[in-house]
Amino acid sequence: MDIIQYQTEFLNYLNDKQWVKEPKNLYTPVDYILQLGGKRIRPILTLMAADIFSGDFEKAMPAALAIEVFHNFTLVHDDIMDDAPLRRGKETVHEKWDLNTGILSGDVMLILAYQYFENYEAEVFQKLAKLFSKTALEVCDGQQLDIDFETRNDVTIDEYLNMIRLKTSVLVAAALQMGAIVAKTDNKNADLIYDFGLNLGIAFQLQDDFLDTFGDPETFGKQVGGDIIENKKTFLYLKALELANPEDKERLHHFYRQKLEENSVKITEVTQIFEKYGIPASIQTLINDYTQRAFNTLTALNISETAKNQLKEFGHYLMGRVK
Amino acid sequence: MDIIQYQTEFLNYLNDKQWVKEPKNLYTPVDYILQLGGKRIRPILTLMAADIFSGDFEKAMPAALAIEVFHNFTLVHDDIMDDAPLRRGKETVHEKWDLNTGILSGDVMLILAYQYFENYEAEVFQKLAKLFSKTALEVCDGQQLDIDFETRNDVTIDEYLNMIRLKTSVLVAAALQMGAIVAKTDNKNADLIYDFGLNLGIAFQLQDDFLDTFGDPETFGKQVGGDIIENKKTFLYLKALELANPEDKERLHHFYRQKLEENSVKITEVTQIFEKYGIPASIQTLINDYTQRAFNTLTALNISETAKNQLKEFGHYLMGRVK
Repeated sequence: MDIIQYQTEFLNYLNDKQWVKEPKNLYTPVDYILQLGGKRIRPILTLMAADIFSGDFEKAMPAALAIEVFHNFTLVHDDIMDDAPLRRGKETVHEKWDLNTGILSGDVMLILAYQYFENYEAEVFQKLAKLFSKTALEVCDGQQLDIDFETRNDVTIDEYLNMIRLKTSVLVAAALQMGAIVAKTDNKNADLIYDFGLNLGIAFQLQDDFLDTFGDPETFGKQVGGDIIENKKTFLYLKALELANPEDKERLHHFYRQKLEENSVKITEVTQIFEKYGIPASIQTLINDYTQRAFNTLTALNISETAKNQLKEFGHYLMGRVK
Repeated sequence: MDIIQYQTEFLNYLNDKQWVKEPKNLYTPVDYILQLGGKRIRPILTLMAADIFSGDFEKAMPAALAIEVFHNFTLVHDDIMDDAPLRRGKETVHEKWDLNTGILSGDVMLILAYQYFENYEAEVFQKLAKLFSKTALEVCDGQQLDIDFETRNDVTIDEYLNMIRLKTSVLVAAALQMGAIVAKTDNKNADLIYDFGLNLGIAFQLQDDFLDTFGDPETFGKQVGGDIIENKKTFLYLKALELANPEDKERLHHFYRQKLEENSVKITEVTQIFEKYGIPASIQTLINDYTQRAFNTLTALNISETAKNQLKEFGHYLMGRVK
């Protein structure tokens, strides 16, 4: 099956669920955020992994839904923390309703995610919930580090990579491993598919960082330059600080101390500094490195070549946003 | 064992845990709220139920901790929603740190609660997590109804009782049933102890409503008149509206439309209306009714008379705040 088929099957499953129930003010926002769209990357991975290891993707549906609902919980609470007015071009939950609705609907989604595991027998349930709790805590740790970095001036590239590993990659990895758990494959396969997802997730986030500054405004989907406007200490910024001469370093520091109304000059100048020090090439090297690490773990997986190619294809699909 | 012994054992267990880890900004608030005190009613109930049904309270410690950590999660998020500056006489988490810390530390506590169930084998784990998810959703539903009632003028007494059942009582009931699950007693006992907790929990919340207006400022622990200041539509208010003549009804409506700086006149006048219509006696009747229902479920429990008396004693301890 190809990626679009998994996506279609998942969307059918998602849309069959009756989200809105009493009290309506609590569950209407849950329905709203889950219908906002997105590529549904994480649930697709759960279904694909289950399919690869057992030939049956349908039994992974509840786990895939848990992952997607959890992901949307993080979006709702993160949007409050980032004071973000828009999500996928639509109003965020706390903006459309209010702060309290954002908090409480988010809480409900976190609990609902656990509830979907009840579709599995006790042994599988425990494995899924255990992986889920570990992953969810890591995602919270990553979000906290991201917040901490805003006010720190000594963030290292290693710390940054660890932050994106926690905030983004572990969930991609867990999505795949949940498919493996549902399929009851052996631990070795389950660990390898996790590592595949972890490295691919880091590559994906670095790609997102790259596109945030160097992407095509027509296809990127978010505002190009957004990270520069927000003074986000991404790899681009940290690597530039490492390589820049004292004057450019000071200019970077200067720009990243400012929150401006009008950002076109800031975006242009910072982008020029990034280009001057070859940062686009540096990050592409790193992206390729993590993608390659992901693909290397496939070699050791005890699955067919067709299945390995399917995972590779997904990797290319995910990273294909560069075009 | 008596109540104080369970409490002491639980506090020892709680204090042995290393709460603060990296990232510190995330886990320091978790430690802070868990150390703020409180009577630890819910974990005591879990330990007591496990003791009664199996003679071994210690194996219920992780479940008791899960209940207490969850309860504190609700306090942290509810305090944000209520814009409360103080909790147990100390600064609330969002006040001592900030909004984002309150949201994220709360999220972490909800996940940690699930993690404690990992101490049990798969079958027990699944039963506990299932009961926990159901209960946690009910608590969120109750919180949403409480918020909804603020802006509604047609709340009935039945709706109010349903709201406090969800917001407060199901957690007391679940605390007891978790002890029963850990002790592996039969379903009948587990259901009866749940009903005991549910009715006792409603009696307890009604008692809290009564004391909020008619309690002794010396011993109540919260500001007497707080619910009147906040225009909370508790049983006292709803029953008074039911019984009052048109003039007093209008005065009540008038007072409950106002948010004032100086509340002594409002508190005195509203209290007088409550007294004029015999509301203190009405609520006492209802409290006794729910307490009696709780005690009646004890009859059918398949446990020793000593154990039944222990549960009764706890009921009296809980309700003893009236003195």
